[in-house]
Amino acid sequence: MDLVIKDATVVTCDADGTVIKSGGVAVENGRIVRVAPSAELEPLAANARQVVDGSGHILMPGLVNAHCHAADSLFRGLVENLPLEPWLQTVWKAEGAILNRQTTYLGNVLGLAELLLSGVTTVMDMFWYPDETVRAARLLGMRVSTGGIFFDPPGVNGQDLAGRIAAAERFFEEFGDAEDVFSAVLPHGAYTVSPENLRTAKKIADRHGALFCTHAAETRAERADVESRYGRPVIRHLDHLGLLDERTVLAHCVHLDDEEIEILARTGTTAVHNPLSNLKLASGFARVPDMLEAKINVALGTDGAISGNDLDMWMALRLAATIHKANTGRADAVSTTEAIHMATGAGARALCAGDRIGSLEPGKFADMILIDCQRPHAVPMFDPVTHLVYSTAKSDVRHVFVGGVQVVRDGQLTRHNIEDTLAEVNSLQPRIAASIA
Amino acid sequence: MDLVIKDATVVTCDADGTVIKSGGVAVENGRIVRVAPSAELEPLAANARQVVDGSGHILMPGLVNAHCHAADSLFRGLVENLPLEPWLQTVWKAEGAILNRQTTYLGNVLGLAELLLSGVTTVMDMFWYPDETVRAARLLGMRVSTGGIFFDPPGVNGQDLAGRIAAAERFFEEFGDAEDVFSAVLPHGAYTVSPENLRTAKKIADRHGALFCTHAAETRAERADVESRYGRPVIRHLDHLGLLDERTVLAHCVHLDDEEIEILARTGTTAVHNPLSNLKLASGFARVPDMLEAKINVALGTDGAISGNDLDMWMALRLAATIHKANTGRADAVSTTEAIHMATGAGARALCAGDRIGSLEPGKFADMILIDCQRPHAVPMFDPVTHLVYSTAKSDVRHVFVGGVQVVRDGQLTRHNIEDTLAEVNSLQPRIAASIA
Repeated sequence: MDLVIKDATVVTCDADGTVIKSGGVAVENGRIVRVAPSAELEPLAANARQVVDGSGHILMPGLVNAHCHAADSLFRGLVENLPLEPWLQTVWKAEGAILNRQTTYLGNVLGLAELLLSGVTTVMDMFWYPDETVRAARLLGMRVSTGGIFFDPPGVNGQDLAGRIAAAERFFEEFGDAEDVFSAVLPHGAYTVSPENLRTAKKIADRHGALFCTHAAETRAERADVESRYGRPVIRHLDHLGLLDERTVLAHCVHLDDEEIEILARTGTTAVHNPLSNLKLASGFARVPDMLEAKINVALGTDGAISGNDLDMWMALRLAATIHKANTGRADAVSTTEAIHMATGAGARALCAGDRIGSLEPGKFADMILIDCQRPHAVPMFDPVTHLVYSTAKSDVRHVFVGGVQVVRDGQLTRHNIEDTLAEVNSLQPRIAASIA
Repeated sequence: MDLVIKDATVVTCDADGTVIKSGGVAVENGRIVRVAPSAELEPLAANARQVVDGSGHILMPGLVNAHCHAADSLFRGLVENLPLEPWLQTVWKAEGAILNRQTTYLGNVLGLAELLLSGVTTVMDMFWYPDETVRAARLLGMRVSTGGIFFDPPGVNGQDLAGRIAAAERFFEEFGDAEDVFSAVLPHGAYTVSPENLRTAKKIADRHGALFCTHAAETRAERADVESRYGRPVIRHLDHLGLLDERTVLAHCVHLDDEEIEILARTGTTAVHNPLSNLKLASGFARVPDMLEAKINVALGTDGAISGNDLDMWMALRLAATIHKANTGRADAVSTTEAIHMATGAGARALCAGDRIGSLEPGKFADMILIDCQRPHAVPMFDPVTHLVYSTAKSDVRHVFVGGVQVVRDGQLTRHNIEDTLAEVNSLQPRIAASIA
């Protein structure tokens, strides 16, 4: 064996919700070959190249952040107290002034490092220069889902439609076969991309059997805007254009009527819930309990730190499990099992990668995290899943493995000195501040 | 000087919102004697007994958690997915089976350690055996506001009214003059304490010029219950009994009508907002923006970890600043200045201790925290107050001082080995689990 982790509380996140009180995994060639009680792992541990003691820790699959703009961490806290639409205008001004390939890469390292340190091993990210996102993810050793961006205005890189199509195709050429990249085409939204161009983007995705991801139904204003332009609110508009299926991932889905919930369920479309962003930008409360009841695949995201103001999937998880209780008046709305699935299996399913990530099961990638449960805020523990949803903080994540390789050890990246990145970002800070002055 | 901290970003939380870009404080005999730019502190630092380099950190006053049940951390995650009323019945069953003086002390050390490590230097705590809360707070080196409990049923300690009165008086005898204890009388609520006994409790508090604290208007059901029993909803009931004034602290205040908001404003009563507890127990959304507009002193609390499921004031702060944006649809609802005041100055004012705690100003207790701002989730920083509200995590708190004494160094308690406490709690865990089985 390449790696054996033992003596942990194993929360497998498999379909049966299997928890092993004292157990672990064995890993070979980047894949999990065994998930078992510690006693059964002992013989494998004897000859393993790396053995990790998981005692006092929960072992679980790495989290899947299904909606993010990692490089936007450069703008964390820059634009505050505005609703989405005027906020976006200011954000775009700052992005336009600051972003080029080099700064985008820098922002990606910053944002992805935060995610990996907190136990996110796969992220779906939408941003300019998506190959720079892959480059940063590879530096750190994590998986990413991204691809060509569609946006009708010139945007940061000033491409026209032909340029965007060529870039999307190039992304597939370069990364279409990679195990660490889940390739996608990502138009920004129905209010920034014309129906024709949305269809073009979807055709490219379909030709490659790839994912299609866009923002949808984030605010009331967007819903009204799309309805007034195209005669249908957002989800019905996208459905009418033939864009919704099991490879489609819609970020936000806050403002949906009953028919639109039915459409998402019928088409197998994934909705990504981004509770912190929706709260802070005053977008509202997504109908998560209704979507779960309709059997929609609801994944979880942080959105970008420019709205967030960080990329804390543990906070997203806790909010997903609590805000809908207050909003519906039902203290059992969104169970801990449903919440943890949103952050793991549902994210895997969103990326059509449920056979490879999202749970600890033989045959899957060995993407795993160890969470310290012996902290003053985390003792005692009665039920490990309750513990993960309601008492775990990002700082409890001690070790992270991607494909069996340890990429975080004792809360530190193993493959990159983050101090260098922080110093670079700090020296860029005055220019960023000046960009909207 | 006993202590000089310099080269930090100083967020004083004074009335003018003064921020010093590179500065610090000088401390003598437990009190702040100087708050100034670093250059002015250099001569004082030269002869100081302790000098702390604050570079890369924010220096701010210790947080005030205005509503907590620290010892309930023993029951973290034990009772889940219930609204307040059936939840309380189960909680009381577990408390009755487990709590005695010794286990209450243990729970207090656990809960208060979590608070102190996260930068809370003063907490208002309501629990059985309040002298055990003081004992635990003194072990760790933090300030606490507590005192005699009133609860009409026998409760954990089986006292009758005479016993509760005697215990309340004894608390004043023992701690009434202490600098580290803000003495109070704490009846549980209008639905568990009769009007006569509420008045008795208030008379004791008044005779000592002390605080009076109770739960109020937490749920719709409580509001209806009190109204059906006494003819008035909670706040009007308490006002009618003459219980509301500037020394009164009401935890929750979720379900208020306009007249009740006006009553709190007119009487100078403090409302304590506990966002996480209110979300998780499906209690609802307190009218915080309306209360702030009415100039009510709104402080911030974590409530107990039995509802929470931890005691994270940074999460409370972030929720206080975000959930009301989504709930009102106004992205500027609850400013960062208002939010940080809730966690500092408003808490100090709630305890009638605004002259001693809640800001960094000469003459006040040197209760201060240093927050590491050079973490991947925390760079870049454009505005330090925005940073504190939206990007700071409890794990960023590196150093904590109470009365000028360092009680947390590099994220570790200086006066107690918390591992001993965690081991004791872990060995009690099976008995706690069995208590509600």
